[in-house]
Amino acid sequence: MQNKPIILVTNDDGITSAGIKALVEAMQTLGTVVVVAPDSPQSGMGHAITIHDPLRLNKIDIFKGIDAYQCTGTPVDCVKLAVNKILHRKPDMCVSGINHGSNSSINVIYSGTMSAAMEGAIENIPSIGFSLCDYAHDADFSTAAHYATIIAKKVLKEGLQQGTLLNVNIPKGSLAELKGIKICRQAIAKWKEEFDERLDPNKRKYYWLTGKFINPDKGADTDEWALENNYVSLVPVQFDFTAHHAIPFLNKINWHAG
Amino acid sequence: MQNKPIILVTNDDGITSAGIKALVEAMQTLGTVVVVAPDSPQSGMGHAITIHDPLRLNKIDIFKGIDAYQCTGTPVDCVKLAVNKILHRKPDMCVSGINHGSNSSINVIYSGTMSAAMEGAIENIPSIGFSLCDYAHDADFSTAAHYATIIAKKVLKEGLQQGTLLNVNIPKGSLAELKGIKICRQAIAKWKEEFDERLDPNKRKYYWLTGKFINPDKGADTDEWALENNYVSLVPVQFDFTAHHAIPFLNKINWHAG
Repeated sequence: MQNKPIILVTNDDGITSAGIKALVEAMQTLGTVVVVAPDSPQSGMGHAITIHDPLRLNKIDIFKGIDAYQCTGTPVDCVKLAVNKILHRKPDMCVSGINHGSNSSINVIYSGTMSAAMEGAIENIPSIGFSLCDYAHDADFSTAAHYATIIAKKVLKEGLQQGTLLNVNIPKGSLAELKGIKICRQAIAKWKEEFDERLDPNKRKYYWLTGKFINPDKGADTDEWALENNYVSLVPVQFDFTAHHAIPFLNKINWHAG
Repeated sequence: MQNKPIILVTNDDGITSAGIKALVEAMQTLGTVVVVAPDSPQSGMGHAITIHDPLRLNKIDIFKGIDAYQCTGTPVDCVKLAVNKILHRKPDMCVSGINHGSNSSINVIYSGTMSAAMEGAIENIPSIGFSLCDYAHDADFSTAAHYATIIAKKVLKEGLQQGTLLNVNIPKGSLAELKGIKICRQAIAKWKEEFDERLDPNKRKYYWLTGKFINPDKGADTDEWALENNYVSLVPVQFDFTAHHAIPFLNKINWHAG
């Protein structure tokens, strides 16, 4: 292929994670890969950016023949720095992941993986976040990488609508076990927090955030349904957070009357 | 008033900031206030949650006659802890702010203030984020507090549609200078990053994230337009990030064909 596309790869599990290695290898089959990823795990960082601390970038030799940089910042910082200080241009695609764990449903809003992809989309770069729904320490990323290749290849060819990115979640399982790709909407589900309360050696309380996923949204058009039924879920995501449907309701209220 | 509503107040600038003090005083006129807020500034934290560190809560005597807790976590952690470990029930309203600086337009996605309010809305609590568009060190929060009272009072009375929250930005200026409240959509704007590159004493590069706000969206129905024209902007926000309009486009693609 002439003029091979430039593909920016990032993640939130950190540059040494197994998921980014699988994604880098998959993307190498499609273009010239440049990696800019956090130097440490950043799960749950949401769309955090680093304002009060300086950022550092270090070039490291971790993926054979590929320019790779580890960054002291968040996943969003990585995308900003990659575009501005490393590539000095927009890449042809930005992919984030493969996250070690699901980013379906409400998890999209807590996810550093998805925030990095969202930052790419804000920069008008076709962007995709990939996540594997497997929390096992030795999770196998090969099926997820297979689907990442298929989907990224299509996005390079077809593009994405402006202002949208893709949230792709891949169920655990072999290629033979998965049923293919399903376009979905985000299930309206939530986490029920269950803080684990403990006492430190000085008998002072502290808490660990834990929780249980609650999904009352049983629609067969949701990402949760797709994943439960062994489909790869593909949800188009936008960064216009306006609840347009709520505008008429709010316009009916007389805000200035006591 | 009997059965005074319970109002949870949080923010991202930290519990000692001037903005939360103004909001606490405003909300005291409407109900019983409980404050749970970060012990240090958390600007730009987006929807970050704390997974890899334990969280601590300390009750502090900072607002006269009001239960107030400082938390070591993010704004989202504060809301989760408040509901689960302090109130042991859902408050009647959750308000966040008053942020020292704008959270209009694309800033909604980077904002810890708005993420706290979003977390409230996920818990099905009527929730509002307030921000004052003034970056001056000695910014005057009194006009913003006046509008926060008006808007919170209406929300307590009228409620909000499920799955929505409010992003309220208040321009700098006196009450006489502002023209009232305008229901808006989020302007589709972005930051153009300009990293400030420096050398440390060991001659190694580091970067400060800075940037310039770019707004190509000139719609008179946007929050940016409202603020420029001295209106308080009120944008309904949702946490269903699905780009529903993109689903037909994606369904037309044959993902499984080479």
